[in-house]
Formats: sequence, structure tokens, C-alpha cells
Amino acid sequence: MKQEIAFIQRADLKVKPDTASLGFGKYFSDYMFVMDYHTDIGWNDPRIIPYAPLTLDPASMVFHYGQAIFEGLKAYKTADGTIQLFRPEKNMKRLNESCDRLCIPLIDEDFLLHAIKQLIVTEKDWIPDGEGTSLYIRPFIFSTEPYLGVRASKQYQLLVILSPVGAYYGNQLSPVRINVEEHYVRAVIGGVGHVKTAGNYAASLKAQEKAEANGFAQILWLDAKENKYVEEVGSMNIFFKINGEVITPRLNGSILPGVTRDSVIELLKYWNIPVREVKISIEEVFAAYERGELEEAFGSGTAAVISPVGELNWNDQTITINDQNIGQLSQRLYNEMTGIQLGKKEDPFNWTVKVAQV
Amino acid sequence: MKQEIAFIQRADLKVKPDTASLGFGKYFSDYMFVMDYHTDIGWNDPRIIPYAPLTLDPASMVFHYGQAIFEGLKAYKTADGTIQLFRPEKNMKRLNESCDRLCIPLIDEDFLLHAIKQLIVTEKDWIPDGEGTSLYIRPFIFSTEPYLGVRASKQYQLLVILSPVGAYYGNQLSPVRINVEEHYVRAVIGGVGHVKTAGNYAASLKAQEKAEANGFAQILWLDAKENKYVEEVGSMNIFFKINGEVITPRLNGSILPGVTRDSVIELLKYWNIPVREVKISIEEVFAAYERGELEEAFGSGTAAVISPVGELNWNDQTITINDQNIGQLSQRLYNEMTGIQLGKKEDPFNWTVKVAQV
Ligand SMILES: Cc1ncc(COP(=O)(O)O)c(C=O)c1O
Ligand SMILES: Cc1ncc(COP(=O)(O)O)c(C=O)c1O
Repeated sequence: MKQEIAFIQRADLKVKPDTASLGFGKYFSDYMFVMDYHTDIGWNDPRIIPYAPLTLDPASMVFHYGQAIFEGLKAYKTADGTIQLFRPEKNMKRLNESCDRLCIPLIDEDFLLHAIKQLIVTEKDWIPDGEGTSLYIRPFIFSTEPYLGVRASKQYQLLVILSPVGAYYGNQLSPVRINVEEHYVRAVIGGVGHVKTAGNYAASLKAQEKAEANGFAQILWLDAKENKYVEEVGSMNIFFKINGEVITPRLNGSILPGVTRDSVIELLKYWNIPVREVKISIEEVFAAYERGELEEAFGSGTAAVISPVGELNWNDQTITINDQNIGQLSQRLYNEMTGIQLGKKEDPFNWTVKVAQV
Repeated sequence: MKQEIAFIQRADLKVKPDTASLGFGKYFSDYMFVMDYHTDIGWNDPRIIPYAPLTLDPASMVFHYGQAIFEGLKAYKTADGTIQLFRPEKNMKRLNESCDRLCIPLIDEDFLLHAIKQLIVTEKDWIPDGEGTSLYIRPFIFSTEPYLGVRASKQYQLLVILSPVGAYYGNQLSPVRINVEEHYVRAVIGGVGHVKTAGNYAASLKAQEKAEANGFAQILWLDAKENKYVEEVGSMNIFFKINGEVITPRLNGSILPGVTRDSVIELLKYWNIPVREVKISIEEVFAAYERGELEEAFGSGTAAVISPVGELNWNDQTITINDQNIGQLSQRLYNEMTGIQLGKKEDPFNWTVKVAQV
């Protein structure tokens, strides 16, 4: 796709929020990227236009049959004024995997990345520069054809919106309490758990609310077939450090392949810390705790980067991990990852992609 | 909820489509019912307004986290000019079950039914009266709060739109070819398969497209845990008549409890035809065929009412049911159900609910 990206200027810019009050996903920048799809003409009319409400027929298929997928990545501003992305090509690839599974027409990954860069340059003043802040990038696609009947839509819209964010889980690493969900499930092999489709998140809310009502911050999901094997946390993958070795559930078709997960594995290998992707039951995790071998547990995701787990509750058993303190490895990984993202540390894997210099 | 329903008149009415060209879900009437929700004030501002595009923030949570549920029922016009619904209270109840599972605030079932009746009276000229036609009613709810973060939305919109429809699967009963899906799954226990949420349908498209590419009209889904037990068809429940007895998969938490399914069971009991809700494997169905005992198979759903199955394909085995003819019982059930719906037959269960006389 070699199309020009049209640009429509807005008359007035918004007042930017205070860095301290950013939170996550509450504020949106002045412009958005939009592109349309129709079976007759493919993806067309790429444009950067003022952030504004969409106009959608009430019969638009997304409201009824839920073809909706998304990605999440961040733009960072380094101390020397470089604007950069972290492994964005992986998000583009995963977006297309989500498209494929949901019968949404594939996008040109290079073109979308190019468009995102252009949008970020337009919105460079929206990248906050406080500690732990960044500009969250949300590409998403949904079906727009007005039709009631179960089949793939013939029309779609792709958007990219930007939100300046603070740290997802507050301003510094703090171990969270997690409940192992026994009744509800997030995903099953043969389903859509391995891609980022809207319905996965809607389906997860009930268990999330139950967990929160009981004082837990997140859920640890088990597999849906046997309710036995560890899968992942709300919007993070999960790692356990057991007796010096780091393990994480193997990608089995119902777990989301996180970009952060992959980066953690790569970093650990680089550091010569033993790491394995395995099928691990929750029983084994608790048994490792009993043996005194469960040294750390942490989640990994774009929003939080690394999130240490302080407590795990499974049925009536509660275990405290690393005395509710931030694990050494968790902290090291967090420092390394955010260091690379913010240009404070060397980037031996060439993970960062420069967008512009300001 | 004892609120008045506001009404905004439109200037011009649409030209109504030809009865012969109706199809399903392509045309929408002049007005729609809308109601809003905000956590601070609950469901509010019920109104019947001109059918028109919605205005939604790009960050509206429905596009990202998929809280979206719906119902489907029909209004019929009888020969003597009665407008009636078929067991609508069951759809209201199921709507609330969907709400509950998806963390969407419950609605007042009586009020919504009242609003639907009022909308239908407003739109009475949109109820077609050709053979097999009706006015399809689509209530749906989705999250509207502009926020990026996985939690239940604080704002929603409920709409009811109307679509004059012909018969879903063409103009007369015709046995369909169905593929038993071995790889993809629709739903799993602990998930959301037992409610009508948008994501379920998006997740089903891939297998549906695969089936269609191989010449099949529909999919027969198996359970997700063992890929062994029969669940349901695309948007219908499934029945088998084996050696004089009718069986249908027992509601297990991953099957949608169809209103038509329930009506079929009630009718069969009323007729003293043996009927059982069981856990049945696809193997047993094929074994019954081998023994020469599989007499009929049919799907049940609001759209198609009764849809005979002419052929079932499982792996490399294909079985032809009842020589690809419409089964006697399938036809009898179809006649009885549509007869009751159209006021041509007695309604011993008081299933129909009168809306108005025209
Ligand atoms: C379900 C789920 N698992 C894991 C992750 C972590 O993925 P990533 O590291 O790419 O952000 C996310 C967040 O994107 C997610 O939504
Ligand atoms: C998945 C699914 N199963 C079964 C049905 C049949 O339900 P009902 O008879 O209430 O239309 C439908 C249609 O609503 C459906 O979407």
C-alpha cells in the first residue's frame, strides 16, 4: 500500500492533562489515524484527522457479532529527545494474526507502522516525559457493515488513537494479590484466546469483579479443559522463578503471546538465567512453594511492563511470595526493559525503533 | 421503571422494500428505541426516535473490550390483523442473563417489553405479510464509556431496531448440509457460550467460512473440553430423532438455551412423543445412523424456526439423513410453530402475546 496519508487539521488543540494525573487510557490526543475497508476496494482512504466521535449505523455488525480486534504499544521519549517504539513490528504481526482468526481482512503491516509513526510525529507534544509515562498507542479494527446475520462483515474501519499514560498499576512496582480462578475461564484451545479480540476481555470481567470484591487485584487463569494448568493473568503473561529457574506457560493456542513475555525470555537467555516454556499446573506452583522453592512470580505486559506477584490465592490456600517484596529478578527485568525503552540502557537486540528526534 | 417513552417524529418515512426481496437483516424500519445507562443514574431517557447513525467516541469500550449482548425475536401479523409476539418474556429474561454474565447492568424486563410493543405499534406498517415473513426485533446493549482499561464500562446504550424479514434459509424448508467441526470450538463451560454476546459469533466465523468453502451450510459444534459431545449449530440448537425418540443436548453451560428449543421440547411432550435432554457424543449419532436408527435431525432457532439436516459430515464420514428429505416430525414441528406464531393454529400454551389489532 503506497497511498498518501491525508491530513485534516483541527482548529483548536485540546488542553493537555497534567502529567501527574494521567492514569491510564483516560485522555486522548488531538488526532487519530483512520482507514476504511470495503470488500470491493480493500483498505482505503488512510487519513490523519481530528480525534472526534464516529458515526455508525445501529446495525453495524460490531455491535451484534463482535468482529473487533486491537493492539497496544507505547511510544517513549528519551532524555536526548528521541521518540521511539518498542518492537512495534511484533504488534503489527499479532494484529494480523488477530485479523486472520476473526475473519477480518489483513492489513499491510509496514504501511500501518508507517502511519503510526506519522501520527506520533504529528502528536509528538502528547508524549509525556515524567517517570514511568509514555504515549499509549491503540490500533483497532471493527466491522461496520449494517447487516444482521452471522457472517464476516464486508466493511471495516481501522483506527489508531493515542493516550498519554502514567504507569498502569500506579507509580512504582508494587506486588499484587492474585486469585486463581477456578470456575470461570478466559479461553480454550480452538477458540480465540491467543489473539487480541474484544470479546475475550468482556468474557473476563465477571471473574475480575469477583476477584476484586475479595480484595484481589487480578486473576490467574487456568486452562479451560482441565482447570488445572496455568495460563496467564488479566492482561499479562505469568512467570515463576522456582529454584533458580524461570518458567512460564508454553504458548498452547489459548494464551496470548505477549511481546513483553517474549522480551523477558530473550533477556533471561542473554543473561544466562535458565528459562523454560512449560506446561505447568497450579498444583506444581503451590508444591514449589511448599518446598520453599518458589522464589518469585511476576506478570509481564506492555501496560505494566513487569508486575510482581505478592500473593496467590487458590481455593482456600493463600501463599505469600518473597514476603510480598519486589523480587530481585522482577526488579532487574523491569529496570532493564524500561531502561531500553527509555534509551537509558543499551539495546543489544535492536528492539527500539526510532520515530523522530525532537 | 415507570418512565414515559419520549417520541421524536421523523420528517419523511423510508420507502418500504418489496416483500419478495426482504432476505434477512438487510432493511431497517423508520424508528428505533433507545435508552442510556450511566452508573450515577441507571437506565434513563427511554425514547423512540428516527432510525439514524449513532455517534460514538473512538475509545468507547465496546470497540476494545467487547461488552455487547443482544436478543432476537419476531413480531407476526395474523390473518385477522392481530400483531403478536412469541414468548417474548423468555427473550427479556435471557437478555438479563446475558447482561449478568457480561457485567452489564440489568434492565427492567417488563419495561423493555412494553417499549418493544410501543415501537412495534409505531412501526406496524413495517410488518410484512407474505408467507414466512415477519418483523425481526433486535434488542441490543453495548458499552459506550470512552476508556481504555479492562473493567466494566460505566456507560451503556440499549437499542431496539426492527427489520422486516423473509425466511432465514430461503422460502421453504430445505434440508441443509452440516459439517461437524473438529478443530475450532464455539464455547466452553465457564465461558460465555450460554449467553448471547457478540464475541461468540465473531469467534465462530472462521469455522463457518471453512465449512462454506467445503460446501456446507452450517457447523455442528462439539464441546471444547473433549471435542466429543454435540453442542449446537451456528445459530440453532440441534435435535436428533433416534428410533422414535427425540434427543437434544442437555443445557450444560456452554450451549445457548434457545426459546425455539424449549418450545420444541414442550410441543413434543404435549404430543406424547418421547423427548430427552442428554449428553450425546457425535460418535453415538453416527452409531445410530449405522444401526439405521437415525430417523431425523433438525435445528431450531428464531430465525429459521425448524431447519432439517440432510447431511452430516464428520472427519471423512458423511451420512445422509432421511434421504435428504424433510422429516415428518421436522415438518410437523415447523407447521405447528409457525401456525401458532401466525395465529393459524391453536395456542395451547399461551405462547403468543398480543401487541395490537390493525
Ligand atoms: C490477555 C493478555 N495477555 C497478555 C498480555 C501481554 O501482552 P504484551 O506483552 O504484548 O503487552 C496482554 C496485553 O496485551 C493481554 O491482553
Ligand atoms: C448460538 C445460538 N444457538 C441457538 C440459537 C437459537 O435460539 P432461539 O431459539 O432463542 O432463537 C441461537 C439464536 O438465537 C443462537 O444464536
